[in-house]
Amino acid sequence: MQIGIIGLGKMGFNLAQNLKRNGHEVIGNDVNRDLVEEFIKQEGLKGAFTLEELLENLSGRRIIWLMVPAGTITQTVIHQLTPLLKANDIIIDGGNSNFKDSLLRYQSLKEKEIGFLDCGTSGGMEGALNGACTMIGGEDEVFAHCEQIFKDISVENGYLHTGAPGSGHFVKMVHNGIEYGMMQAIAEGFEVLSKSNFKLDYEKVARVWDNGSVIRSWLMELTERAFSKDANLDQLKGKMFSSGEGKWTLETALDLGVPTPVIALSLMMRYRSMEDDTFSGKVVAALRNEFGGHAVEKK
Amino acid sequence: MQIGIIGLGKMGFNLAQNLKRNGHEVIGNDVNRDLVEEFIKQEGLKGAFTLEELLENLSGRRIIWLMVPAGTITQTVIHQLTPLLKANDIIIDGGNSNFKDSLLRYQSLKEKEIGFLDCGTSGGMEGALNGACTMIGGEDEVFAHCEQIFKDISVENGYLHTGAPGSGHFVKMVHNGIEYGMMQAIAEGFEVLSKSNFKLDYEKVARVWDNGSVIRSWLMELTERAFSKDANLDQLKGKMFSSGEGKWTLETALDLGVPTPVIALSLMMRYRSMEDDTFSGKVVAALRNEFGGHAVEKK
Amino acid sequence: MQIGIIGLGKMGFNLAQNLKRNGHEVIGNDVNRDLVEEFIKQEGLKGAFTLEELLENLSGRRIIWLMVPAGTITQTVIHQLTPLLKANDIIIDGGNSNFKDSLLRYQSLKEKEIGFLDCGTSGGMEGALNGACTMIGGEDEVFAHCEQIFKDISVENGYLHTGAPGSGHFVKMVHNGIEYGMMQAIAEGFEVLSKSNFKLDYEKVARVWDNGSVIRSWLMELTERAFSKDANLDQLKGKMFSSGEGKWTLETALDLGVPTPVIALSLMMRYRSMEDDTFSGKVVAALRNEFGGHAVEKK
Amino acid sequence: MQIGIIGLGKMGFNLAQNLKRNGHEVIGNDVNRDLVEEFIKQEGLKGAFTLEELLENLSGRRIIWLMVPAGTITQTVIHQLTPLLKANDIIIDGGNSNFKDSLLRYQSLKEKEIGFLDCGTSGGMEGALNGACTMIGGEDEVFAHCEQIFKDISVENGYLHTGAPGSGHFVKMVHNGIEYGMMQAIAEGFEVLSKSNFKLDYEKVARVWDNGSVIRSWLMELTERAFSKDANLDQLKGKMFSSGEGKWTLETALDLGVPTPVIALSLMMRYRSMEDDTFSGKVVAALRNEFGGHAVEKK
Repeated sequence: MQIGIIGLGKMGFNLAQNLKRNGHEVIGNDVNRDLVEEFIKQEGLKGAFTLEELLENLSGRRIIWLMVPAGTITQTVIHQLTPLLKANDIIIDGGNSNFKDSLLRYQSLKEKEIGFLDCGTSGGMEGALNGACTMIGGEDEVFAHCEQIFKDISVENGYLHTGAPGSGHFVKMVHNGIEYGMMQAIAEGFEVLSKSNFKLDYEKVARVWDNGSVIRSWLMELTERAFSKDANLDQLKGKMFSSGEGKWTLETALDLGVPTPVIALSLMMRYRSMEDDTFSGKVVAALRNEFGGHAVEKK
Repeated sequence: MQIGIIGLGKMGFNLAQNLKRNGHEVIGNDVNRDLVEEFIKQEGLKGAFTLEELLENLSGRRIIWLMVPAGTITQTVIHQLTPLLKANDIIIDGGNSNFKDSLLRYQSLKEKEIGFLDCGTSGGMEGALNGACTMIGGEDEVFAHCEQIFKDISVENGYLHTGAPGSGHFVKMVHNGIEYGMMQAIAEGFEVLSKSNFKLDYEKVARVWDNGSVIRSWLMELTERAFSKDANLDQLKGKMFSSGEGKWTLETALDLGVPTPVIALSLMMRYRSMEDDTFSGKVVAALRNEFGGHAVEKK
Repeated sequence: MQIGIIGLGKMGFNLAQNLKRNGHEVIGNDVNRDLVEEFIKQEGLKGAFTLEELLENLSGRRIIWLMVPAGTITQTVIHQLTPLLKANDIIIDGGNSNFKDSLLRYQSLKEKEIGFLDCGTSGGMEGALNGACTMIGGEDEVFAHCEQIFKDISVENGYLHTGAPGSGHFVKMVHNGIEYGMMQAIAEGFEVLSKSNFKLDYEKVARVWDNGSVIRSWLMELTERAFSKDANLDQLKGKMFSSGEGKWTLETALDLGVPTPVIALSLMMRYRSMEDDTFSGKVVAALRNEFGGHAVEKK
Repeated sequence: MQIGIIGLGKMGFNLAQNLKRNGHEVIGNDVNRDLVEEFIKQEGLKGAFTLEELLENLSGRRIIWLMVPAGTITQTVIHQLTPLLKANDIIIDGGNSNFKDSLLRYQSLKEKEIGFLDCGTSGGMEGALNGACTMIGGEDEVFAHCEQIFKDISVENGYLHTGAPGSGHFVKMVHNGIEYGMMQAIAEGFEVLSKSNFKLDYEKVARVWDNGSVIRSWLMELTERAFSKDANLDQLKGKMFSSGEGKWTLETALDLGVPTPVIALSLMMRYRSMEDDTFSGKVVAALRNEFGGHAVEKK
């Protein structure tokens, strides 16, 4: 099939290669002209420097795959794209948009008879290139029209029409919440190892845990890989950035009244890691000093 | 090699089959005569109704694999076994013993010149049968003597001499702590799914998450399997039993000063699940009523 | 001063008595005519069955105190009230409104030259009657005009102009977040006491803790009072309802990137208490069964 | 009554003044001769440079109050003291000993017919001086003999015979667990305030919260006091030391199967505050980089 991709960053670029390898015709666009030029250099890939040019290169029922940052940028691109589209054209948002936004976008595009699929894409850059995991929300007919794309870019059993519009990004969001929890669990385990008196080889521990154990997982494989590059992670700072989906999962859980302590704490330890010192710590230190005369550490 | 196994329950029985398949000669013992009789019925497996009989059937440097419940029973078996052993014989504790106990046992057996290996065994019953993950603590020479056993019963790259005595059970304990966290993370995610307005097929979601996603893992595969048997887990109660290793991980983390919120909360949600009503809940309800006249639910 | 109160429930009724005792002239209104009629029966209190009647009874720069449920009802009352007001009149929202809503309301009323103060009111029903704690956000001039009211209804040092519009409800919201944490801390402590082997008299423990200890507090005094009525809280169910402010505090903390594990968990244990059984518990139970053959409890 | 005090640090010194003011005859001892000399300088207080000298100065049924650090030092002092005592003499351990140790000490002293009371003492240095909160475990007869002491040194309603030996330190331990939770709750609240856009005066907020609000408490009074000395706590580092009782409360909760998330997290945030960077943070950062190519911060 013919697919236009908007957003040629790490994920979009890899996805385009994946699509091409599976016999699809890909035309790529990005606001960054350099990325478009590099894209064009790849054998078998076409580029477009404007949205208009992109759409001109697509025929029939046009499919536009967005792979741009969630939030304002996704909103802007859809805003610019919509007047250029015609009835039956399809936008697939393959990024990490909030499922509530996706639902609103579906409804808004529906009024213009433009199809919309919200596609949560997991598997990282490697997955985007070699076989991803895709969770797709949207109308049956629109999904059916695009199903072959999802089938081709995903690993076996790695795509799912999750249901109604919004459900793709919803399921992906929850996936990320689980991911936060799993990563923090692994991280806590290794910190316990690191503080013990045993002399342990973290890479070897990660490898044995990834082979035959109950906790074998892709994340454990990646843990092994990370330790193979830097045996004690001496070169890294432990700053744990977060990009929204863990927070959304927690906010959604709060709205639904679901206790999610592990997801909550995984997120909060990330927040904590961004602070060198904390105001809350100062308050507790001050209180201990007030009632018990306990020593405080001055700056 | 010749191996005596004490403890023919689910794990020990499967492990014996695994050893036999790999060409080892296995003699099994259990305090439960029925289990020994069933064991003997298996082609190629020998049984012993007493420890004395077990040891008589082993020659040279004898290797005894314990696969019995941690704590008192393991202690009792070692206590009974020790006077029957001679210098250089080897006890492998393949159960979930506390690593501190294992260290003490190592030291105590060392005085009698009896070898001791603490072997954490992961992978569940399937692993015990078809290929486990083993983490082994103990002296180099003793490990080297037994290495072929661990290599044979484990999947490829699935065994590791973790280091000093106690380290095998220590690494296995931390593994279980991580396991608690991962399971709770998955469980929280599915509870969020279950409370949402989207109609989701949990088995399909688990399947897609197990194929190509960042959170693909054996636990996700098992989640899929569980939902395939009971689509909404309607037949289960959500009681989450725990058998000690999560608690030990947390206690160890406290001793080492390591913040492990995810492991802690995974354990505490298990404890919470064992209570129908809580005294803490009553206290909060009573307080809300005292200051705000908020309604309380009476029994 | 003359004050119109809208909302004659537990809090509004008590507050009116408090104002009257301090020499203010109070006219009360409620959508529930019965409450108005009961209000009128109180010596020295006037009632109004409609907003129009209420406003007619006030002269000069009119002050209307809202003591109605946060959210839709507050919004509706303000919506109905606004066209009846004239420039310089003042609305005080004494309820538990979300500070973001209060800020919007301030701005919207500002365009109509109507003054607005957001007043967080703490101290429970007793405080409303005998001396509350009030935290007031709003413009200096508007606050100054009403300051005597806040001074009169509050205990000594118990009122504060917190600053800009919205800050009163913001500070009150955070107060409630702390309240959640303190209550859960107390509740956990008593649950530990209750599970121990010591035979303890909870009322006496609460009393001694409320006299001279580091944790002496009004909440501990209320704990003592609760146990004095029901020594083991046998008559209560441990359902911990929540009415929004803890959730808002947590959501705000997430927006601000502040780790607030204690407030988060206090809220989540409330959510947990509303569930008899959990889907997450079923998932963990099912997983333990899958990998370890661990027993599950069937329904 | 005559009371010998061993341990003339901050708490013991203040307690001695408190006892003297209430008409008791106090003889003080400390391993640090300087402290004894300073003690003697106080009007009406006697000092003893050795345990022998201390005991010689006491007559009849001797009462020795220990106010020394829990653990090894308490154990050592009791070990040295015991052979010098005679039947019916009484040791009161007023420190923060682990209740399990206190129970063992009671039993051991019981064999020698020496009385033992475990007295948890709360209220900080001010309480020790002016009126403390005391929770006392031990036999009825021994408690009755000493009751006047506890009554005198405590505020009104501020002493309690909690019950069996060990129960005093047990109740004090749980008190400290609650204290951890309350302090962390307050601290989290102030951190939320500090990150908001509102300009808030923390001292004033603490003051208003301490007057009439639901969360009024001695800790809030101390919070106000701390901010009055350093408006933004700029001079402090947020290192939250801990001295054992929070950890014991959590360990006890784990043993009893009580979910105590707030106490657990209060302790863990203290641990976290002692680390500048974390190994767990590095693991998460490394994993995010592995699967998503997310930027990591290098050292």
